[in-house]
Amino acid sequence: MNKPKIFISTFPFGIHNPEPLDLLQKTGWEISANSLKRKLKPEEVADLAKDVDGIIAGTEDLTPLILTNSNLKIISRVGIGLDSVPLKLCKEKGIRVTYTPDAVTMAVVELTIGLMVSLTRNVHLADKEIRSGGWSRFTGKRLGESTIGIIGAGRVGLNVIRILSEFKPRMILVNDIKDKSLELDSLLKDKGISYKLTEKEYIYKNSDIVSLHLPLSSKTKNMITKLELNMFRQDSFLINTARGGLVNERDIYDALKEKVISGAAFDVFENEPYKGNLCELDNIILTEHMGSCSYDCRLLMERGASEDIIRFFTNQPLANEVPPYEYEN
Amino acid sequence: MNKPKIFISTFPFGIHNPEPLDLLQKTGWEISANSLKRKLKPEEVADLAKDVDGIIAGTEDLTPLILTNSNLKIISRVGIGLDSVPLKLCKEKGIRVTYTPDAVTMAVVELTIGLMVSLTRNVHLADKEIRSGGWSRFTGKRLGESTIGIIGAGRVGLNVIRILSEFKPRMILVNDIKDKSLELDSLLKDKGISYKLTEKEYIYKNSDIVSLHLPLSSKTKNMITKLELNMFRQDSFLINTARGGLVNERDIYDALKEKVISGAAFDVFENEPYKGNLCELDNIILTEHMGSCSYDCRLLMERGASEDIIRFFTNQPLANEVPPYEYEN
Repeated sequence: MNKPKIFISTFPFGIHNPEPLDLLQKTGWEISANSLKRKLKPEEVADLAKDVDGIIAGTEDLTPLILTNSNLKIISRVGIGLDSVPLKLCKEKGIRVTYTPDAVTMAVVELTIGLMVSLTRNVHLADKEIRSGGWSRFTGKRLGESTIGIIGAGRVGLNVIRILSEFKPRMILVNDIKDKSLELDSLLKDKGISYKLTEKEYIYKNSDIVSLHLPLSSKTKNMITKLELNMFRQDSFLINTARGGLVNERDIYDALKEKVISGAAFDVFENEPYKGNLCELDNIILTEHMGSCSYDCRLLMERGASEDIIRFFTNQPLANEVPPYEYEN
Repeated sequence: MNKPKIFISTFPFGIHNPEPLDLLQKTGWEISANSLKRKLKPEEVADLAKDVDGIIAGTEDLTPLILTNSNLKIISRVGIGLDSVPLKLCKEKGIRVTYTPDAVTMAVVELTIGLMVSLTRNVHLADKEIRSGGWSRFTGKRLGESTIGIIGAGRVGLNVIRILSEFKPRMILVNDIKDKSLELDSLLKDKGISYKLTEKEYIYKNSDIVSLHLPLSSKTKNMITKLELNMFRQDSFLINTARGGLVNERDIYDALKEKVISGAAFDVFENEPYKGNLCELDNIILTEHMGSCSYDCRLLMERGASEDIIRFFTNQPLANEVPPYEYEN
């Protein structure tokens, strides 16, 4: 085979640390990158990567590309979510898929904890108010006096719980499709923190803060709509650093506007860059899908994705090929 | 003696939980409160409390009151800082002073951790940008990849370090007037987190984040001026949830404006409510002396201060009389 052609569709890539880009360029292969410097639309990826052999991808939808590019042999995802990759179609076409499931964890965990505190202690409201001459001294609920609901106790969820344990919350409520009692015992038992494995509905009804840490799939899409939001306590908060689409955006807008819940913090949206009407509201903190955006995690992700695509074209075993169970979602 | 007259000068008091106010009112004594509902100026306290026997005080300067009110027998501080109470003058006049040193700790600790994450991950910038149509996806440094300097390892400082330990920072640098190695070993050794007890200057020069946790006194006033800020790394952050006056406000304004340091988060100011020119800057998060403002900590503080003033006038021993070493600052 000729020199492989590789397209880097994700952005940012190699900005703060050039090492991953250097790794790719040292191969001497044809490497091109997303010159639009933003998340690409599905047709844009299909166009810009129309004849490549491999792609280093972000969260852009790859379906049109896969349907039209018959050269494509490997997709290397910078990150963990696979909702943008039509895995069954890849399997049919013999396209291998690799990702970086561990690299992103702690950057998302830290952002989640930071958003929890900022939200419940009204940091965003105080910062805004003081700049327009006010001084209310907002009171909030400490994490240490809260019941915190964690939906999804995988890599991110369990690490959020580990850090929360030092805040000594009143109770941690956990929902996961698997029984995570061993993991939770080892994190919480010695510290005397109570937890309860329970149904989502129980979490909605009983938490001061609900935080989502699960992938987007046909099973989780629109998991939280008006129906669920109406179960929440009026003084509760919802945090989503996982995936847009888990929470129906029209319904969370209404719930925040009508004070059905107290507030929210969203890092992820159905359509990104986000331009929707949540921007009108004061009782939500909005960030820009920055869960993975720490210097060290970006480097780990970008290096991991680059190394796996290099392994593929030099006939070495992949380090992080997407495992079979991911194909079942 | 007749019914004691008590003035509650601090605000807010008894807002979210009426219990402390109820305790006071059940005594049948003459209880009055700060009807201006903001921090009082020194002359306002002197005027409004001119003939009271006891005062439940916030952070307002009590000097003029003490000089003019010859009835005053006890000052009960809602909180821990004593920079607003002229202790030597109180001693001369035989005025007892009590405070609530433990109640406030965890609320300040949590706010500090929240500010650290929000600041270093650019939550405030993203929230602002997304609302005006932008989407930069700011990258920041995780606490886990940072060297964090803690100046003052008392109640708050040590608890900040305890929670930080689960973020696994690269290194924790600590400065305190006492040797805190036993306390730090017990918090950090088992977790394999490195720490170093060191001079302030070393902390300024080597930290990604510097966080202040010490009282305001003649020794600490203007501890950080232009001279010290010039020692900081250009990519570093400064957090002050302790007391205004520790950092010279004119100098931190210049340092932020000229990007001598990357950013700051301030909860406390020389003059509060704060109205100064830090409000013009984007690279600072400003909050409204809200360190103590969690529901549970406000209740603990307000109840503690109320109980001690009741103890005084019913001839019981005080629970939290200010100890002799505080008089030496």
